[in-house]
Amino acid sequence: MKRLLPLSLMLLAAAAPLGTQQAIEAAGPLDWRRLDPDSTLYMELATGRVVIELAPEFAPKHVANMRKLARAHWYDGAMITRVQENYVTQWGDATESKPLGEAAAKIGLEVVRPRKGLAFKAIPGREGYARRMGFAGGFPVAVGTGGEAWLTHCYAMVGAGRGDTSDSGNGAELYTVIGQAPRHLDRNVTLVGRVVQGMEKLTALPRGTGPLGVYETAAERVPVLRIRLASEVPPAERTELEVMRTDTAAFAAYVDARAHRSRDGWFVHDAGFADLCNIRVPVRPAKGQ
Amino acid sequence: MKRLLPLSLMLLAAAAPLGTQQAIEAAGPLDWRRLDPDSTLYMELATGRVVIELAPEFAPKHVANMRKLARAHWYDGAMITRVQENYVTQWGDATESKPLGEAAAKIGLEVVRPRKGLAFKAIPGREGYARRMGFAGGFPVAVGTGGEAWLTHCYAMVGAGRGDTSDSGNGAELYTVIGQAPRHLDRNVTLVGRVVQGMEKLTALPRGTGPLGVYETAAERVPVLRIRLASEVPPAERTELEVMRTDTAAFAAYVDARAHRSRDGWFVHDAGFADLCNIRVPVRPAKGQ
Repeated sequence: MKRLLPLSLMLLAAAAPLGTQQAIEAAGPLDWRRLDPDSTLYMELATGRVVIELAPEFAPKHVANMRKLARAHWYDGAMITRVQENYVTQWGDATESKPLGEAAAKIGLEVVRPRKGLAFKAIPGREGYARRMGFAGGFPVAVGTGGEAWLTHCYAMVGAGRGDTSDSGNGAELYTVIGQAPRHLDRNVTLVGRVVQGMEKLTALPRGTGPLGVYETAAERVPVLRIRLASEVPPAERTELEVMRTDTAAFAAYVDARAHRSRDGWFVHDAGFADLCNIRVPVRPAKGQ
Repeated sequence: MKRLLPLSLMLLAAAAPLGTQQAIEAAGPLDWRRLDPDSTLYMELATGRVVIELAPEFAPKHVANMRKLARAHWYDGAMITRVQENYVTQWGDATESKPLGEAAAKIGLEVVRPRKGLAFKAIPGREGYARRMGFAGGFPVAVGTGGEAWLTHCYAMVGAGRGDTSDSGNGAELYTVIGQAPRHLDRNVTLVGRVVQGMEKLTALPRGTGPLGVYETAAERVPVLRIRLASEVPPAERTELEVMRTDTAAFAAYVDARAHRSRDGWFVHDAGFADLCNIRVPVRPAKGQ
């Protein structure tokens, strides 16, 4: 990784008008973090691995339940059952009858928590969904007038599907956002993490032709070979990734670059703003991988 | 089409708190319009037809050029050459050398026009990209502080690809948005219309593995069999669609419903807001189709 500036000038970099790629390259070693293997899921498809980072700071009960399901190999043999255009790809137990074992069947919604205690950093600008927007722990977050914080349904965010009652989700049925951020789902379904690698394995699938994009026949379903916690996978078989920290001056410089794309060339007009879901937190292979 | 309210109460419907589907059903015959066959393109793929509505009010020179190219059957044998994850699907002349005939090779950007003269209706709420947002002629539009209006890069919008110089687009090379609205492209590339039917034929394609999602081999490219103006297709072979008008009380009721999804059931929390690109203008088969 080439660094554009000497380490002693790292803090200055945040204030300098960097382009998107420059901002990523200017980030120093401490501006990146490894994924926590206990909060990382590998979903294995025939087409390869999808890596999901879990969000225990926001949905601790759901994440605990999902860890139980993953350790019990409960997800093995799950199916992608739904791909709805400009909305979500969803997977889970296609029979809807597989016993959950030691995992809970019902967990109340985990959709708001106090901003306090989070490493929340606001981004500039305004939006209609919340008082402020920003990032905490690598996730896109909105903050309301009462100091409450919630994860937002940006592209690649992963949620726990639920039925008509708000406590009917448990992390066994999961979905990810594949289109324009359906922010109306915020605070209505528990978000449990985000896909940090492999989204293209979930987005380039045929759309289901049934209501809500459900595959109408069993033959259309896409098998999920298995889902494992990274901590249960031998180190040599892990996908070692680094995610840019979102509470640093380096990330602020990256956010600023996203709002001023003319620094990247080609652009003739700067939007002067980047909305929350247009700021994708950079991910890269860990050093030595 | 069942109407929920008698015609005499149609205007009241706009003020009543309708759900999304109710709002669509409450729209009367005059709240819908047929596509203009001279401003409608059929892009034929092996998987079926993609219907594109052109936007001559915003990009008159590009649309005129595209009509020339379509009438000359110039697009026949084009290729989808690029599918970039969470960004765009792009198609055109893969050889980049096919003569354009009577069509212009260079057209200056057509990215802003006066709001005056448009049937612009603002939607409630705020966003960071523009002073106001709303719709005109069925398209998502932003309005700036100087009264200028521009089309926005919402999902399914179609733009005229260009090179490094701003006048290098001409409507021969086209793309559509397949992910989170890249609003930073607004006013940087000319938008020429939107896909009103068949998006799933452009989004469920394998992502290209080259830089910017370009297909690295000719074998990966997806043939565009032909592109025709609807007016050049025999009436019996046309796809007759109706699009909801965006300057009516009925549409305002629909916008309001999108911001208050709890009226639809299931939701436990109302966002109280719907961003521009989350309001998809309803499209349906024309009566008798």
